[in-house]
Amino acid sequence: MSELFDNEILKKIDEELKTYVDKNDKLYNASKHLLFAGGKRIRPYLAVLTYNLKKDDIEEVLPPAVAVELIHNYTLIHDDIMDNDDERRGKPTVHVVYGEPIAILAGDLLYAKAFEAITKIKDSKKAYEVLKVLARACVEVCEGQAMDMEFENYFPSMDEYFEMISKKTGALIVASVEIGAIMADCNEEERKALAEYAKRIGMTFQIQDDVLDLIGDKKTIGKPVGSDIKEGKKTLMAIHAMETLDEEKKKRLLEILGNENATDEEVKEAIEILSNSIEYAKELMKKATKEAKDYLKIFDKDKRKKLEDIADFIINRIY
Amino acid sequence: MSELFDNEILKKIDEELKTYVDKNDKLYNASKHLLFAGGKRIRPYLAVLTYNLKKDDIEEVLPPAVAVELIHNYTLIHDDIMDNDDERRGKPTVHVVYGEPIAILAGDLLYAKAFEAITKIKDSKKAYEVLKVLARACVEVCEGQAMDMEFENYFPSMDEYFEMISKKTGALIVASVEIGAIMADCNEEERKALAEYAKRIGMTFQIQDDVLDLIGDKKTIGKPVGSDIKEGKKTLMAIHAMETLDEEKKKRLLEILGNENATDEEVKEAIEILSNSIEYAKELMKKATKEAKDYLKIFDKDKRKKLEDIADFIINRIY
Repeated sequence: MSELFDNEILKKIDEELKTYVDKNDKLYNASKHLLFAGGKRIRPYLAVLTYNLKKDDIEEVLPPAVAVELIHNYTLIHDDIMDNDDERRGKPTVHVVYGEPIAILAGDLLYAKAFEAITKIKDSKKAYEVLKVLARACVEVCEGQAMDMEFENYFPSMDEYFEMISKKTGALIVASVEIGAIMADCNEEERKALAEYAKRIGMTFQIQDDVLDLIGDKKTIGKPVGSDIKEGKKTLMAIHAMETLDEEKKKRLLEILGNENATDEEVKEAIEILSNSIEYAKELMKKATKEAKDYLKIFDKDKRKKLEDIADFIINRIY
Repeated sequence: MSELFDNEILKKIDEELKTYVDKNDKLYNASKHLLFAGGKRIRPYLAVLTYNLKKDDIEEVLPPAVAVELIHNYTLIHDDIMDNDDERRGKPTVHVVYGEPIAILAGDLLYAKAFEAITKIKDSKKAYEVLKVLARACVEVCEGQAMDMEFENYFPSMDEYFEMISKKTGALIVASVEIGAIMADCNEEERKALAEYAKRIGMTFQIQDDVLDLIGDKKTIGKPVGSDIKEGKKTLMAIHAMETLDEEKKKRLLEILGNENATDEEVKEAIEILSNSIEYAKELMKKATKEAKDYLKIFDKDKRKKLEDIADFIINRIY
């Protein structure tokens, strides 16, 4: 997939990002810690690719594209505190290195910087439209995270699950694409089609993450296979299994789900019990990916190619 | 001062605030906990009073005025976590009631809602100007809080102290006034004068808080007199004392400052040692308040009256 991710664009995204955190004190160093720890930049990249559907010179889309990445990083820093996670991307988390108070504040700073980035858009009408999209997404991300935390206390329905991921993961991905569309002067019809595309890839992005936890390779996914099972995470597969398994298998699955002391054998057994649900998730992703690509058909064939490739990449990736 | 705070305006501010958190789940209840726990609303009120210098119908200034209050409340929720404070305004803090994860998220939600409030401004050019002011202020508040936390490790200079309070406390107060000015179509000269006014009342607001801690009444200030002394807080008075006292008194003050086990007698002694510095602070506030009011002289005498009264109120208040 080396062609899919254009290094020239990724470099420009990183250069733009650096301008917002160009100070060298404790607060700014804490803010940079995760930001330059090897993220995929998929959100700003999506904004740029969407922009490229209609326009070439990407300078003007970089600030709002980067705004989304800044928001994404603030949420990761705060989530890691909330979840008490010590590692991300193979590095100690911000609060582990700098302590919780500075980590909270580093997230808050990136939050502010994201909105400052919007003010670098020269056209005030576009800035206003982008602000609407980004502020809305920020609200949804908080609501999604709260739902996800509530899921620890009960087994959500399929509908609740989809609402949660559409907010927690989907909202910022939709915002990225919408921001690209606004900056490229897309019309109403184009914006709507792109939002539908983005909703679907946002969904497949989250589900593929959860599938990889079950069937991925420890090395490429950067954590032990089946971590979600021991944690008792309410994934699409777990919810689907609860709704479709016979009583005996359901009972056995519930014994293993959320049991931190489950043996490797038991985790394997749970994955085996989930096999139909994994197939279900894969089919669902295939269907959503096809739909996502269909929504792009109103755009020029060559220009939409990379967005189609991203949709395929998301469900074929192994990390 | 009952006339100074117009109940009609305060009621409208609260009504506007409610529209942003009108849901009844754990996250939203956590977000409302502090927001409706009896804050003075001085920031949105300042925005409205500034707006009233030029315009009467306050409907259009309410959303951005309330945006500042939402930001202020997010910072209080996060600060209370950082400082491990259990009480504010006589009520348990958000993280004490809802736990730290939900408290972090409640702050993050109010943060998003503040920027969402900006999108309720109908004129996109004004929204853009307000966004610039608010995003800038949010960055400064974070930087100021980081400086304040660093002060725990050393005795700052007077310059560092003024930079810290101008960011941590001043930035949002300046933003409030600037937002009122933008919404009221003030010209460049008027905006500059108002910003100078706001800088000074932001400064006196913080200093008076610290003075009250030393000479206020336990009942009205809601905490034991001299709390800052036991905490070793680097107030203007403490810094001034370090720069002006003879060696013997300085040594004695340093023995008491930051000593959590200091007796009431010792706290009294420290306040006695600080008496010249308290006088210094009072003089400084008097001078700043006069300057603040002088900057308002370009406005209509009747219309500026309430802003003048606020400046006086800040340094005369006993709570």
